[in-house]
Amino acid sequence: MSLLRINQLSKADMTALFAQAHEIEQGNYNREALRGKILIPMFFEPSTRTRLSFETAILRLGGQALPVPETNGLAISKGESLQDTIKVVSSFGDIIVMRHPTETALDLAAECATVPIINGGNGCDEHPTQTLLDLYTIQKEKGRIEGLHIGLIGDLKHARVMHSLAKGLAFYDVRLSLVSPPELSLPDDVRDVLRQRGSMFEETADLQSILGELDVIYMVMLQHHRISDPQTVQRLQQEYYCITPELLQTAKPDVIVLHPLVRRDEVSPEVDVLPNAAYFRQARNGVFVRMALLEQMLNHDFPGQKEKNRVF
Amino acid sequence: MSLLRINQLSKADMTALFAQAHEIEQGNYNREALRGKILIPMFFEPSTRTRLSFETAILRLGGQALPVPETNGLAISKGESLQDTIKVVSSFGDIIVMRHPTETALDLAAECATVPIINGGNGCDEHPTQTLLDLYTIQKEKGRIEGLHIGLIGDLKHARVMHSLAKGLAFYDVRLSLVSPPELSLPDDVRDVLRQRGSMFEETADLQSILGELDVIYMVMLQHHRISDPQTVQRLQQEYYCITPELLQTAKPDVIVLHPLVRRDEVSPEVDVLPNAAYFRQARNGVFVRMALLEQMLNHDFPGQKEKNRVF
Amino acid sequence: MSLLRINQLSKADMTALFAQAHEIEQGNYNREALRGKILIPMFFEPSTRTRLSFETAILRLGGQALPVPETNGLAISKGESLQDTIKVVSSFGDIIVMRHPTETALDLAAECATVPIINGGNGCDEHPTQTLLDLYTIQKEKGRIEGLHIGLIGDLKHARVMHSLAKGLAFYDVRLSLVSPPELSLPDDVRDVLRQRGSMFEETADLQSILGELDVIYMVMLQHHRISDPQTVQRLQQEYYCITPELLQTAKPDVIVLHPLVRRDEVSPEVDVLPNAAYFRQARNGVFVRMALLEQMLNHDFPGQKEKNRVF
Repeated sequence: MSLLRINQLSKADMTALFAQAHEIEQGNYNREALRGKILIPMFFEPSTRTRLSFETAILRLGGQALPVPETNGLAISKGESLQDTIKVVSSFGDIIVMRHPTETALDLAAECATVPIINGGNGCDEHPTQTLLDLYTIQKEKGRIEGLHIGLIGDLKHARVMHSLAKGLAFYDVRLSLVSPPELSLPDDVRDVLRQRGSMFEETADLQSILGELDVIYMVMLQHHRISDPQTVQRLQQEYYCITPELLQTAKPDVIVLHPLVRRDEVSPEVDVLPNAAYFRQARNGVFVRMALLEQMLNHDFPGQKEKNRVF
Repeated sequence: MSLLRINQLSKADMTALFAQAHEIEQGNYNREALRGKILIPMFFEPSTRTRLSFETAILRLGGQALPVPETNGLAISKGESLQDTIKVVSSFGDIIVMRHPTETALDLAAECATVPIINGGNGCDEHPTQTLLDLYTIQKEKGRIEGLHIGLIGDLKHARVMHSLAKGLAFYDVRLSLVSPPELSLPDDVRDVLRQRGSMFEETADLQSILGELDVIYMVMLQHHRISDPQTVQRLQQEYYCITPELLQTAKPDVIVLHPLVRRDEVSPEVDVLPNAAYFRQARNGVFVRMALLEQMLNHDFPGQKEKNRVF
Repeated sequence: MSLLRINQLSKADMTALFAQAHEIEQGNYNREALRGKILIPMFFEPSTRTRLSFETAILRLGGQALPVPETNGLAISKGESLQDTIKVVSSFGDIIVMRHPTETALDLAAECATVPIINGGNGCDEHPTQTLLDLYTIQKEKGRIEGLHIGLIGDLKHARVMHSLAKGLAFYDVRLSLVSPPELSLPDDVRDVLRQRGSMFEETADLQSILGELDVIYMVMLQHHRISDPQTVQRLQQEYYCITPELLQTAKPDVIVLHPLVRRDEVSPEVDVLPNAAYFRQARNGVFVRMALLEQMLNHDFPGQKEKNRVF
């Protein structure tokens, strides 16, 4: 079973996964659990942390990583279709993690593949494993997810991590503040999921108006590479949000700042030294969560077929 | 001993190799057979399947792959000679698989190297491990190689896989149909090998005239990157062969279609669902055959020195 | 503890390291000594031998290498700071080897990293592990370092290997001849280290005047990529030194020729067949020395904190 979108999982699935990740973080795991298993990273967009995080995860469990050279090295440059590439690459490993600039490529790949595929980011759509590590981090940093007031701040339109995260948070009884300029607001289909699950959420462009109430500040950079007009990028960059130590003085003392990274100007480096800055711990948590996920998918057929057919 | 060309092997060598590959395919092999051994892929031309196939082969046997970054990352960009690079890289691994755009580079490399080199494709010359997996696939799909009527179809002039395969098939009692436009016909030196071994072969540009008699259809794409004139490429592409479900209705019901891949237009994707389409199984067989080959070369000094001096 | 410059080590440290490298070269080492450890190569400048040498070193000891894709694949291309990249990458491995075009980047990285960093070359500054293998090679080839007359020849200004090597040799009672055109002479700060340690050295532009006295000829190529003016490069290239078999007839019969490689014209390929040519053996020694270094740094906290604070 492939993992393409966060909605394939149930809340119980995630709870079990986080418990396993916690054990791994404590050092309680079998270093040879994935001996003989091969992960194939296929990144059609650049990546450092997602790809390396997955690679180190499989290595830490005794398995191997066999990355396909990035796009320009791919047979695709000889005119091969994505379907052919996936069919062949399926023969070379036990699981594929794939990133692609288009939204539909992952579904196409999962149809052709003879091994499970993990979505490592598909265009503006989803990035489900980022959400798993985000939720794990919130749980760990705040002791719970339920009952928190969480601000999703920035380019909610183009940032796939925000789409997966909003859907993932909708499993929990949280209050969401969606903070963005109107033209960068969360897409309708994601808001529909929030409504279907009865999530409490409000929208605003004014970060300061709600900052003092937040338990979690989740920032994302302006996805400038997804916006074609340079003038629009420039204008949006000027209006964009920026978390500074000064601004945090108006926030709850125990608020945590999360960020999927890469960071540009939206969180000042001066924040790094504050205990509120949880983003580097968050990146580190990605390894534990992905170790748990790979172990489940390769040794326990997770997520199961039943999960796939779950109706939300 | 390096493996540069298919003629270094005897028919008995190949039979033994295929028997071992078959055992591997059944799961009967030692997962730690190459523990501590390092394969170094050096690809001076892009490759997905050959490189990944070799890498997964060594990993499946408990060894490691240590790819040299593709050409632009090579010390060669600092002006280093191929000889110097090979001499140094020899210190870093136990066996090298190398692809190079020129025909002579592999011989040069094998002279300088202090470890065995496997030819992963040298210009328009040879690609011997592709032939090994091709022959293994024919044997497996048809139950035998002897007595078959095999069509080699397409750009027989530039496609190195066709040169190695024709020479490899000449060990067996088969009938070959060489199907190509006259200007893309099999080079004289390869035909000379066929003649020396007394192989039955005929040449034609007309695929339909012999299609109904074939047991094996082996297609290859127009090697457009080896043809300098764009107009020639365009003309040849228009005249080129294309296997479709309709065309296969005039073939034997149990004909198999092989292709080394990358595929472009010469086999329609609609053929994929037919049982005759064996090319994805063929790609998968590459892993088993290369596992057998690496195990033989690293643990059993295969092909032996005697083999090298064999006169054909 | 990171290893950024050769002066962090003591002579005793190096002696112990070379003894361990010698045992490794004899095959006396634990193939699983670094099982479960991950080395992360981060090369912001191209490299073949340094990177591959480190990677094979960790693999030979049962560990794993997880290279960060070269600069263009880095998150840095999305505008990420080096600090952020290092902080995140620290979570993914146990030790980092880093090369960077600027002198200060390694210090910055070592400050941010939560794992040890090895300097794989920082701009024109240092390349300490090259010096370790250079000294190991001299010791092995000549039976000793003390008492030798060693010529450092070529672009002593820009070549970081020369800076580290001069400082490393200053631990020993040797006589140094610094041979370069005046405008490519050894930087003042390196000469200051030689003076502080009371090293005997002389400077000349005339190789022939001292060639007959040398026990070791250490060549380096003109660092043309560090010189901005093409005319200057051309002029210096024409005046540059070149070791030939003819020239070696005026040298001691047992002189050895060393070179960190990549080589261009400064050592004629005709020298390769002479017993004096030690540069390919030198490259091979790099694996043994780096195996010893990685084992010490990962299993024995080498170089220790005390070493760091040593005053030279």
